[in-house]
Amino acid sequence: MALHQSWFTEAVDRTGTAFSLKLGEKLHEEQTPYQKIEIYRTETFGHLMVIDGCTMVSTRDNFLYHEMMAHPALNSHPNPKTVAIIGGGDCGTLREVLKHATVKRAVQVEIDERVTRLAEHYFPELCSANPDPRATLHFGDGIRWMREAKPGSLDLIIVDSTDPVGPAEGLFGRKFYLDCLRALHRNGLLVQQSESPLLHLDLIRDMHRAMREAGFAQARLLHFPQPIYPSGWWSATLAQKTRGTLASRLNPATLARLKTGYYNAQTHRAAFALPNFVKTALKNS
Amino acid sequence: MALHQSWFTEAVDRTGTAFSLKLGEKLHEEQTPYQKIEIYRTETFGHLMVIDGCTMVSTRDNFLYHEMMAHPALNSHPNPKTVAIIGGGDCGTLREVLKHATVKRAVQVEIDERVTRLAEHYFPELCSANPDPRATLHFGDGIRWMREAKPGSLDLIIVDSTDPVGPAEGLFGRKFYLDCLRALHRNGLLVQQSESPLLHLDLIRDMHRAMREAGFAQARLLHFPQPIYPSGWWSATLAQKTRGTLASRLNPATLARLKTGYYNAQTHRAAFALPNFVKTALKNS
Repeated sequence: MALHQSWFTEAVDRTGTAFSLKLGEKLHEEQTPYQKIEIYRTETFGHLMVIDGCTMVSTRDNFLYHEMMAHPALNSHPNPKTVAIIGGGDCGTLREVLKHATVKRAVQVEIDERVTRLAEHYFPELCSANPDPRATLHFGDGIRWMREAKPGSLDLIIVDSTDPVGPAEGLFGRKFYLDCLRALHRNGLLVQQSESPLLHLDLIRDMHRAMREAGFAQARLLHFPQPIYPSGWWSATLAQKTRGTLASRLNPATLARLKTGYYNAQTHRAAFALPNFVKTALKNS
Repeated sequence: MALHQSWFTEAVDRTGTAFSLKLGEKLHEEQTPYQKIEIYRTETFGHLMVIDGCTMVSTRDNFLYHEMMAHPALNSHPNPKTVAIIGGGDCGTLREVLKHATVKRAVQVEIDERVTRLAEHYFPELCSANPDPRATLHFGDGIRWMREAKPGSLDLIIVDSTDPVGPAEGLFGRKFYLDCLRALHRNGLLVQQSESPLLHLDLIRDMHRAMREAGFAQARLLHFPQPIYPSGWWSATLAQKTRGTLASRLNPATLARLKTGYYNAQTHRAAFALPNFVKTALKNS
């Protein structure tokens, strides 16, 4: 069966999988200095942003990814005050971060300002926290920004990037992790999107190894559904600067104030529950 | 972008989503009295069985579904001895059920014998437990079988069916649930695949309501990844005949003997951790 112009399809040759959303129409297309961005109106998922042919964010299901990139890490740190988001230009992760009262300052370092400008237009709900006085939108190279960050100045680094090809490639390597480690304060955490547990276990294993080689004490996987990404099943990796059990600030009163669609104390714990095949694959990484 | 003959695509107009796997070739196609069955060799997911255009089972990711249809329910019952599987013709759920030493008898009631015969040929690993003396393969109408089942004769009913259209439609209604309830012994459980938590919440709500209207004391959702099904995120509903907390037979020694890829004590608990939006939708169902 062939899908024609009325569907947007992301087909990934390497994984042999494709995901499609029914359109709607193309609302915007541009080539920036970094990448090609398209915006579609879909029939059932709201707006869709596509970067270099890959589905990035949809109105309907982005809450899964954005919440799970922010809250498990923030609630695993004893007192997260300063947060840097590398990438994350659609501002959805920033919005989730700013839901935490402990956070005094959050900077989003996105290389491509056009991602943010288009998000402001087509995903205004994701940008609703941008005027927050605690937020800074910085447009520039995240790798360089991290290299120049003040040592010990960050409690949490969230790497909310595209796949490890093109501009994001350097965000998945030992050199970048060394810079992150230096920028992190005591108890500091790094969380990074780490692709599909089913399709990209090799990448996850390599990331965890690179994080430990850079000096992180521990790297833990968390996983969650994300329908518009390959396999519909996605992960993030949470790396700790120092040894010891992660904090688990799952205070019922605080959580009750957190307006979330997916995240709660139960799904926090569930995200860290690893399937046997993942445990086995990561055991000797 | 159009996907041509080198991909198999399941496009669902109603949900506005499509999933595709790269082929490979078509290995088999037949029209049975009940449905059209196709078998493909895919490039990265092994063999794929398609029924009436819907992806049913792939070599690579069926362990997720089959394990989660069997083990959470079996380990939620204090002593499951007799099990009936309605549908489940590929025999993967039966194989998982027979991994439990408590089970003395398991009958699989599949309407279409051709599903099983093709599974034996193209998914032999799923049929490896079929010669087990505790197993019975019965080919016939599951609705009728349940109507005629001896009252109180079953500890667990697993409804492992296709979507609620065509031959499986009657498996999602109050009348069928009444028959299940009568066939269940004290402490009896019914578990049924209940589609995607993101795409089919209305169906899930209707199912839970019908189960309670039939007299089940409680219906609980569990969820897990399933890449080849719409949205890549799937669920099952576990209904209890009698009130009270579910058993949680997560004995470490027993679990260590259970050879599974996804399921373990942690993913058992994780499966029952419901996202906020699901809790809200089911609250008043």
